[in-house]
Amino acid sequence: MPAEDAAALIGPGAVLGMSGFTGSGYPKMVPQALAGRIAEAHARGEAFKVDVLTGASTGPELDGALARVDGIRFRLPYQGDPILREKINTGAADYLDMHLSHVAPGADQGIYGAVDTAVIELSSIRADGTLVPSSSVGNSLTWIKRARQVILEVNEWHSAALDGMHDVYDGIRRPPHGEPIPLLRPDDRIGVPHLLCDPDRIAAIVLSEAPDRNAPFSEPDDTARAIAGHVLEFLRHEVKRGRLPSSLLPLQSGVGNVANAVLAGLLDGPFDNMTSFTEVIQDGMLDLLDSGKLRVASATAFSLSPRAAADINDRMEHFRSKIILRPQEVSNHPELIRRLGCITMNGLIEADIFGNVNSTQIMGSRIQNGIGGSGDFTRNAFLSMFVTPSVAKKGAISSIVPHAAHVDHITQDVQVIVTERGLADLRGLSPKQRAPVIIENCAHPDYKPVLQDYFRRACQSSYGMQSPTLLDEALGFHDRFVKHGSMLPR
Amino acid sequence: MPAEDAAALIGPGAVLGMSGFTGSGYPKMVPQALAGRIAEAHARGEAFKVDVLTGASTGPELDGALARVDGIRFRLPYQGDPILREKINTGAADYLDMHLSHVAPGADQGIYGAVDTAVIELSSIRADGTLVPSSSVGNSLTWIKRARQVILEVNEWHSAALDGMHDVYDGIRRPPHGEPIPLLRPDDRIGVPHLLCDPDRIAAIVLSEAPDRNAPFSEPDDTARAIAGHVLEFLRHEVKRGRLPSSLLPLQSGVGNVANAVLAGLLDGPFDNMTSFTEVIQDGMLDLLDSGKLRVASATAFSLSPRAAADINDRMEHFRSKIILRPQEVSNHPELIRRLGCITMNGLIEADIFGNVNSTQIMGSRIQNGIGGSGDFTRNAFLSMFVTPSVAKKGAISSIVPHAAHVDHITQDVQVIVTERGLADLRGLSPKQRAPVIIENCAHPDYKPVLQDYFRRACQSSYGMQSPTLLDEALGFHDRFVKHGSMLPR
Repeated sequence: MPAEDAAALIGPGAVLGMSGFTGSGYPKMVPQALAGRIAEAHARGEAFKVDVLTGASTGPELDGALARVDGIRFRLPYQGDPILREKINTGAADYLDMHLSHVAPGADQGIYGAVDTAVIELSSIRADGTLVPSSSVGNSLTWIKRARQVILEVNEWHSAALDGMHDVYDGIRRPPHGEPIPLLRPDDRIGVPHLLCDPDRIAAIVLSEAPDRNAPFSEPDDTARAIAGHVLEFLRHEVKRGRLPSSLLPLQSGVGNVANAVLAGLLDGPFDNMTSFTEVIQDGMLDLLDSGKLRVASATAFSLSPRAAADINDRMEHFRSKIILRPQEVSNHPELIRRLGCITMNGLIEADIFGNVNSTQIMGSRIQNGIGGSGDFTRNAFLSMFVTPSVAKKGAISSIVPHAAHVDHITQDVQVIVTERGLADLRGLSPKQRAPVIIENCAHPDYKPVLQDYFRRACQSSYGMQSPTLLDEALGFHDRFVKHGSMLPR
Repeated sequence: MPAEDAAALIGPGAVLGMSGFTGSGYPKMVPQALAGRIAEAHARGEAFKVDVLTGASTGPELDGALARVDGIRFRLPYQGDPILREKINTGAADYLDMHLSHVAPGADQGIYGAVDTAVIELSSIRADGTLVPSSSVGNSLTWIKRARQVILEVNEWHSAALDGMHDVYDGIRRPPHGEPIPLLRPDDRIGVPHLLCDPDRIAAIVLSEAPDRNAPFSEPDDTARAIAGHVLEFLRHEVKRGRLPSSLLPLQSGVGNVANAVLAGLLDGPFDNMTSFTEVIQDGMLDLLDSGKLRVASATAFSLSPRAAADINDRMEHFRSKIILRPQEVSNHPELIRRLGCITMNGLIEADIFGNVNSTQIMGSRIQNGIGGSGDFTRNAFLSMFVTPSVAKKGAISSIVPHAAHVDHITQDVQVIVTERGLADLRGLSPKQRAPVIIENCAHPDYKPVLQDYFRRACQSSYGMQSPTLLDEALGFHDRFVKHGSMLPR
């Protein structure tokens, strides 16, 4: 069916469950056609907005197109689109930023309302009617099961050899019928490779041939390489101390410059036979798989550069035995992350001197992307690390602040913080013991004396000494930035 | 051996792993004798402090006695003693406030240093040499396994019929050898009833006959009863909507006045065949067990009034088949809490208008008790509720504030907030949607207009609109209280 006809099946106020995770495997044709319908309705003076529930972030053809026409009323559980971000930060759209493992249970409780339509990208439909997901699994299983009607987008840009890479486990029973998830190692396959959908509920099938939102890979800069160096030295140290095996433990890594630098460092490092249990497979993981140092990568989605996407499409059969894509409730499940003992590496916007981490809201109120899976992974990790340059905006923003303006990861969940300046191993330290270590090891020299002075004075006159705080200065860094453009004292 | 002789086995700088959880099952004789030794050393001008690792809070004979003589250098993972609290808040002692399920894994990683001595209260030692825990299990298994030497306190105040109530599961393997925990229902027994210890490592056995720190039960006041009424109405509603079974789901409840009022309400409520999967068994749970409405209670410790403690000691054989005490790594394990789908009810110090919760630090810096198991339970709950009176200190402190001065539970983990004024069901709402609901339903009338005015202005001039915030006013409630004794505008 043409995308326009499929989009005509969606009306104002619809709750849409869409595939897509970190810019991969999201539908591309129907959302754009829907955006056209919405723009026409608005031109006629008619109200037309929808709720968009996905796996995680999508691309310009989905979030971008719908946000541009003011078509999104409510969005969950993660986004990263510049146009949608602006709509949220001006108050035009509501955004529920969620733990990614919490979405499917909440949907099964009916918390987001009845799902009207699922729009799911596939790489193919098999002769027996089973559905082959494309470059992500995300919450597709949930949306297909719960939606009144299902629209499928079959995207022939994806390699046909994706068939067999996915592991769709549909065995999670809701309380009081819960059972253990029978996954013991990152390479265990516990489900089936395909999605199923009663043909009676399939309202439309739309064809497409369009690439995912694959962002070009940027080479790690000196800062990223310095951060990666600290991380790798620390991991070597932990292995030497006998706290980690020489194959490490399953790696979870966020995306971006620093993550890629760490993965590049592992390529030259002393660790063999590694595994990954993570959300997203990025370029560096493919290199590690190619080298043989990484044995298997389990995730729910790809997030690749155009070069790596083309490469993996060419060599999908080679990678199919080494990569497993699972539903995000499985890839991010606390039970599994804790059982496997992941080593987690995630970015941050700011950490305060006690180790509370803000991953999402600039100056405490402006959303960047979202918490994503960082909460699922961090709290249940064997070793949780946060990595960041010590400053942003050419030094106008310090990543280390007296008091986080928003908290996504409480101090109890943050074991290690790394900047290009150094690494703070916070395990076993009280908040008061953490502060000098974080300031000394991680803060930028421009901010170090300011932070030291703050902490010294807080230790003299705080209301309590568990986390010495000066209430009338705690958010001063942020207030200065908003009013004067820099966190540095004037 | 006399307690003094046993205490002489402990030297300055020792890392002590002690039994005890919420004032039950902690050693009482050796810590007091150790406090005497420390006082004498200090009188001679000698340094003598120890690190104290426990299950959770203990009693005056342990935390109180050691803190009084300035004998505690470092304490984890939870405390509630007034003398120790004061030492922490003046900076004399360091306190690592931890998720209770994280303690044993951290100990096995050696994060808190080598454990020198375990001091464990038992109710008896059997003829075959196996050890019967007393009124809590906590981290006793971990400390016995890891300590260089073990000191046992056999407390004959406890009923001999405690033997058989405990379920000590020692099957949790550390990564990369993790396996599912084979517990499917709150009443499953998966371990053995006793602790084991190589006799060669038992350095001393001390006898005692002293009651636990059992605080008198205070009857719920009108505020507590109003909160309980809202909770019970909400649970009835959820059952009617088909989102909860009529037996509910396993209950977790904090201790105190409000929790007791909810439990009392359940006694008269329409729910039957209930279960509890929690940390602590308080008076109200015994009444529910007696009534038959509660089928089984799984926890790691008791926390009873003297009356209830005497009653349970008299009728231990009756209760033994309905109560299971487990190691706290099991009672608080994310895998199990999520699988079972607990309904969690915990207190708070303050919630902000976006639903971030501060459970631990008054005015953001002064420790009250600690996060305890509230993080373990809340994030993995099927339904997470926080209950609190809307004001404290005769109205000088509002429980609803513009911006939490410290965060223990991020907005993503907080589903329902209840005060005597009403209940805010926050499920599926973005932070910006949450604020008017929390202010309207939960805030005290004295603070409601102040909060409404703050939020209205924040929506006009915040840097971003995900969580509208006025940086120079966000902590104003707290700053006013510290400077002028009330959060109300002057």
